[in-house]
Amino acid sequence: VLTGDRASSTGATPSEEINGPGNLMDFLDEPFPDVSTYEDFHTIDWLREKSRDTDRHRKITTKSRESYWELIKGLLDAWSGWVVMLLIGMLTGTLAGVIDLAVDWMTDLKEGVCLSAFYYSHEQCCWTSNETTFDDRDKCPQWQKWAELMTGNSEGAGAYVLNYFLYISWALLFSFLAVSLVRVFAPYACGSGIPEIKTILSGFIIRGYLGKWTLLIKTVTLVLAVSSGLSLGKEGPLVHVACCCGNLFCSLFSKYSKNEGKRREVLSAAAAAGVSVAFGAPIGGVLFSLEEVSYYFPLKTLWRSFFAALVAAFTLRAINPFGNSRLVLFYVEYHTPWYMAELVPFILLGVFGGLWGTLFIRGNIAWCRRRKTTLLGKYPVLEVIVITGITAVLAFPNPYTRRSTSELISELFNDCGALESSQLCDYVNNPNMSRRVDDIPDRPAGPGVYTALWQLALALVFKIVITIFTFGMKIPSGLFIPSMMAYHHHDWIIFKNWCRPGADCVTPGLYAMVGAAACLGGVTRMTVSLVVIMFELTGGLEYIVPLMAAAVTSKWVADAFGKEGIYESHIQLNGYPYLDVRDEFTHRTLATDVMRPRRSEPPLAVLTQDSTTVEDVEALIKDTDYNGFPVVVSRESERLIGFVQRRDLTLAIKTARQKQDGVVSSSVVYFTEDTPQAAEACDPQPLKLRRILNLSPFTVTDHTPMETVVDIFRKLGLRQCLVTRSGRLLGIITKKDVLRHMAQMMNQDPESIMFN
Amino acid sequence: VLTGDRASSTGATPSEEINGPGNLMDFLDEPFPDVSTYEDFHTIDWLREKSRDTDRHRKITTKSRESYWELIKGLLDAWSGWVVMLLIGMLTGTLAGVIDLAVDWMTDLKEGVCLSAFYYSHEQCCWTSNETTFDDRDKCPQWQKWAELMTGNSEGAGAYVLNYFLYISWALLFSFLAVSLVRVFAPYACGSGIPEIKTILSGFIIRGYLGKWTLLIKTVTLVLAVSSGLSLGKEGPLVHVACCCGNLFCSLFSKYSKNEGKRREVLSAAAAAGVSVAFGAPIGGVLFSLEEVSYYFPLKTLWRSFFAALVAAFTLRAINPFGNSRLVLFYVEYHTPWYMAELVPFILLGVFGGLWGTLFIRGNIAWCRRRKTTLLGKYPVLEVIVITGITAVLAFPNPYTRRSTSELISELFNDCGALESSQLCDYVNNPNMSRRVDDIPDRPAGPGVYTALWQLALALVFKIVITIFTFGMKIPSGLFIPSMMAYHHHDWIIFKNWCRPGADCVTPGLYAMVGAAACLGGVTRMTVSLVVIMFELTGGLEYIVPLMAAAVTSKWVADAFGKEGIYESHIQLNGYPYLDVRDEFTHRTLATDVMRPRRSEPPLAVLTQDSTTVEDVEALIKDTDYNGFPVVVSRESERLIGFVQRRDLTLAIKTARQKQDGVVSSSVVYFTEDTPQAAEACDPQPLKLRRILNLSPFTVTDHTPMETVVDIFRKLGLRQCLVTRSGRLLGIITKKDVLRHMAQMMNQDPESIMFN
Repeated sequence: VLTGDRASSTGATPSEEINGPGNLMDFLDEPFPDVSTYEDFHTIDWLREKSRDTDRHRKITTKSRESYWELIKGLLDAWSGWVVMLLIGMLTGTLAGVIDLAVDWMTDLKEGVCLSAFYYSHEQCCWTSNETTFDDRDKCPQWQKWAELMTGNSEGAGAYVLNYFLYISWALLFSFLAVSLVRVFAPYACGSGIPEIKTILSGFIIRGYLGKWTLLIKTVTLVLAVSSGLSLGKEGPLVHVACCCGNLFCSLFSKYSKNEGKRREVLSAAAAAGVSVAFGAPIGGVLFSLEEVSYYFPLKTLWRSFFAALVAAFTLRAINPFGNSRLVLFYVEYHTPWYMAELVPFILLGVFGGLWGTLFIRGNIAWCRRRKTTLLGKYPVLEVIVITGITAVLAFPNPYTRRSTSELISELFNDCGALESSQLCDYVNNPNMSRRVDDIPDRPAGPGVYTALWQLALALVFKIVITIFTFGMKIPSGLFIPSMMAYHHHDWIIFKNWCRPGADCVTPGLYAMVGAAACLGGVTRMTVSLVVIMFELTGGLEYIVPLMAAAVTSKWVADAFGKEGIYESHIQLNGYPYLDVRDEFTHRTLATDVMRPRRSEPPLAVLTQDSTTVEDVEALIKDTDYNGFPVVVSRESERLIGFVQRRDLTLAIKTARQKQDGVVSSSVVYFTEDTPQAAEACDPQPLKLRRILNLSPFTVTDHTPMETVVDIFRKLGLRQCLVTRSGRLLGIITKKDVLRHMAQMMNQDPESIMFN
Repeated sequence: VLTGDRASSTGATPSEEINGPGNLMDFLDEPFPDVSTYEDFHTIDWLREKSRDTDRHRKITTKSRESYWELIKGLLDAWSGWVVMLLIGMLTGTLAGVIDLAVDWMTDLKEGVCLSAFYYSHEQCCWTSNETTFDDRDKCPQWQKWAELMTGNSEGAGAYVLNYFLYISWALLFSFLAVSLVRVFAPYACGSGIPEIKTILSGFIIRGYLGKWTLLIKTVTLVLAVSSGLSLGKEGPLVHVACCCGNLFCSLFSKYSKNEGKRREVLSAAAAAGVSVAFGAPIGGVLFSLEEVSYYFPLKTLWRSFFAALVAAFTLRAINPFGNSRLVLFYVEYHTPWYMAELVPFILLGVFGGLWGTLFIRGNIAWCRRRKTTLLGKYPVLEVIVITGITAVLAFPNPYTRRSTSELISELFNDCGALESSQLCDYVNNPNMSRRVDDIPDRPAGPGVYTALWQLALALVFKIVITIFTFGMKIPSGLFIPSMMAYHHHDWIIFKNWCRPGADCVTPGLYAMVGAAACLGGVTRMTVSLVVIMFELTGGLEYIVPLMAAAVTSKWVADAFGKEGIYESHIQLNGYPYLDVRDEFTHRTLATDVMRPRRSEPPLAVLTQDSTTVEDVEALIKDTDYNGFPVVVSRESERLIGFVQRRDLTLAIKTARQKQDGVVSSSVVYFTEDTPQAAEACDPQPLKLRRILNLSPFTVTDHTPMETVVDIFRKLGLRQCLVTRSGRLLGIITKKDVLRHMAQMMNQDPESIMFN
């Protein structure tokens, strides 16, 4: 009996043995080419996708025994997953490199132009120059500010005003281009994309969200948006871009393009590749995909993500947009140990980060809701222009906000070296002192440090406010870098009190790093992946403990004010059907409380196995909009035998009416194994549809606690579940019913979250 | 209807409203104190454990509204998880520190003793001495070799022989003590423990495996075993020790001690803490727990593991057993970039690692099987003594095998500095050359390097062979360090051909590191966690790409020869019921092919809801050894209403017979909601057992493909599943049936694995 020969054990007729009973796919592959796809804004059925993949797999295995050619084809199929990963990694890495180069160039274009080659950024332009320190960067002769180029005069109020004006003009131009491109060509290219990608990975269909067109427009507008100086980062959008690449390469292999479940495995890996290139953090990328983005993440996907992230990071390194052959963007060079007592400020930074996260999420969600409900939402282009204008006007006077955010972070993370000319390192220099590098913080602070401090404080306030309004606008906007921005120098004050001359001193760059981690943690609620990204980003392996302490504190504090991170909040705001694995359902309801039909509603729309006519079925399809119908033995016994998809049913009847003689409105539809001889003989001909019947629908009893039902939906990725009692069909629970019930329960009893 | 008031919606009688129908736990908590526990060597039911925890949680939430005291108790309960993590982290860190110190001391005790304080290891003894380099370590006057101490003569053949003899004697003494302690006090303390922990975490009960006694004995014998010089590491056993700590602290909180599901969450985190201290790699520990050990790993556990791993690493750092205040054991200091062309040897190392992994697993499993089946298994003490003897005799003459493995690894990982006196760094020194550190590899190799090379080659062969025999003996034995040992210098040969004088040269330490990763990857089949551990271990963040390349190659090569890593192989060898998440089940069988009873067997043992007598039930319990029985409406209709656990049934009847008047052998057992009035009135009194009936047993239809069934068992952690067809009960599938079927299918069709 264990031989896998199902026909004999189920007693199927010889004609059915070819397809095998319940084997939907063989049948569907040919007559209805698109029957297996889902409609837009619908949820996929993970179990069904998985079993379709296994069928495909089995077919290949069987075939591969027949000839060498088929064997090779089978092996190629088995390796196609790795090929897709390789392609994704390479394309993502290349795109990231191109974006980095373009952003560098266009950001500098706001201030001036390189005379030797207009497509050089400020830094590239001055590479050949002898002066390489920050202070002397303006002295490089090939690089000219706009005012200098146009009027020949680089000093004075006139030049400043002209530079100011051109800075704003360029910013407005870039952002106008960005928002127009998004509006006209690819509306899905806006925002960070991570909430939508989370929803898609959880099994929702949003057609075109990961399309070629979106990929192209998002790449272009991302460059424009970041260059315009808006308070946004390229990290989230890079994940979206990577997922678009993933989707693109999926279409090369039918294994992935025809199976929504397998496609999502590829997309999970693509998300990892995206983070990998965004931060130069391959391991962090894999963890981010695992912790934050993905829904179904088998170990096989872990290895593949790992590979894709590796290839992507490698490609980016080959392009080398930062001019240092390191993978990490903000490589820090300090390796000084930290002290136990410093844990206190680190934890305070964590608290600050948690508070900031809460503030940001509340503020941003309130603003986005206002945008959705008021007139504001009607004028997205105007909104972008206004915000860009305000950002540019306020950003130019402050040197810390004028330049690009990543440059700023890089400066803040770094420790002051003896040769560093940044204003932050302007300590009083005593030429008689022996200039040991680690002595620098012992010297009293010079005037430059104080200027830098209030400029940084202003920059902090400005960034906090503007980021709240920026995130969620109709242009590509990432969140990471702004979040990391809106942070530090809290620490600068602490640092100053702490550091008495002569004593062994703290490392200010470390505080900036920990502060950034805390803020990012507060906003996104990542923990492990955050720490890994931070230390891959900076190379500061010694500082795992401070980073961990800050990340965990930040998460605790922020969770105390609300469980949801920014992405979950946006998912809720947009009303996507996302069943979060993290929410625990602890209420005492039963399946019977959630299932439909409710007591007051009409009974469940069911089909019977041998007494419904084609006419009845068509009427049922017309009158209802359910995705499928349970099939029972008879209306009296209500014993469930299977479930039939609406889509399959519609197509099967349509095809039968066209191609099969004798099938008319009064034909009886048979879902049974054998059609009675009498029915076969008489007119009208019966319509046999057992092949489209799913004989293993998922059932629970009406007494099943809802927490178990929620668990089953989550872990098995179900779309619907039938409810029975002692074998009788009572009702149905869909994913949307579950989500609605969870939301209801949550609102009814908000206290309970504190115990989770 | 959505208010959560289930009594009204199910129409329960008022008396039942107190317990709530189907609410097994309230009832069970009191009359049968141990009814919720499982028997030894049985599988737990994850869904049931989860729902029990939710019940407990709900009770606390409800109570906490009543008074402030209860609120505080509720909050404490919510925080108890973090408290347990803190305690586990602290104890694990402390134990790891103590073990490290003790191993250091006892390893050196084999060679000599410290005169200033006998409890100092060689290194500690000579700290005060001025000579600190390797070469001069023997010249420190406080440390005396045994021969020197006893005869006053440190040179010559006599002293050598005496030292040799004492080295072997100490080794034999240590290993004899270790094996005796294990035999007499805690048989579960042997081996690495990871296969068993994997099995336990997947939901199996092995009583005493994580007990206090095991903890104590394992800690002591681990020190003895490692010190005896056997080719084993302390890493695996440290995970076992950490899990014992986890189990110990679980008993402090009823939340964890009374719930096998929650307990496993704690154990997963404890495993992370174990790896964290074993390698000084907190993030690697979390990933190891996620990738390799854990079965059910919700995100909450991820954060907690993270915390436990952090505390453990921190505690270990405070103890500071290695004398450098770094977390990492083998901190490498080179930061030279690597070249693209080097990927070729890295990938070759990966291939070598994969081959070695296959060889090791095959050899070790063959040896262990022989041990199980032949007379050899009868004399474990003798076996340990013989292997120790052989190891010691062969290890002493070679300086690379004489000292402890971690010392050797540390030396191999490190780059040659100008001041390094290791034999490996004995390049020809030309005093006229300007001595720049990075010039060293350009010089021709001195005679010391050649000596070192053949000694290392010998050490490699020796370690490979001896490790195969050592792993699996009846003493605590870890695998990591020996696996990492049995590796490199492959690369030494490559390195020599590569490195032409004057050319920019490769870093030999990096090759050692990559080789170690490849070998470990081949043996355990870890990927992401392995790379993270390796770079946390060495601090070599630049080398992620080489490590990744080697790890992935090694895994591919090894997987081509067999899917199972060493732990899975040992799980199979020992026949534990472990349902691996990684094996994909792709066969075309249906639930009906696997369920019992088979066609030839007697029908399924069922109870009816209102026509079975106490006598019948007792007979059924006596005649069968099933864990539970389905309850149906009647034998004719076979409509399933629930499932009752054997244990609950036994206890309920026993209690009823003792305490309830009128319950005799001929009493009818009622599982219905309402007992008929007639039955209530007449004699003998009916026995109402609806409260122990599980009203939501898991069911699938007979047409459900086995791949779906396997998926459900895996993801929901089921113990059994009932099989129905159109609402009629047909049979039952248990976890063991699933495992048996999977094994059968695998043997029948071994070809298919290549396509996975």
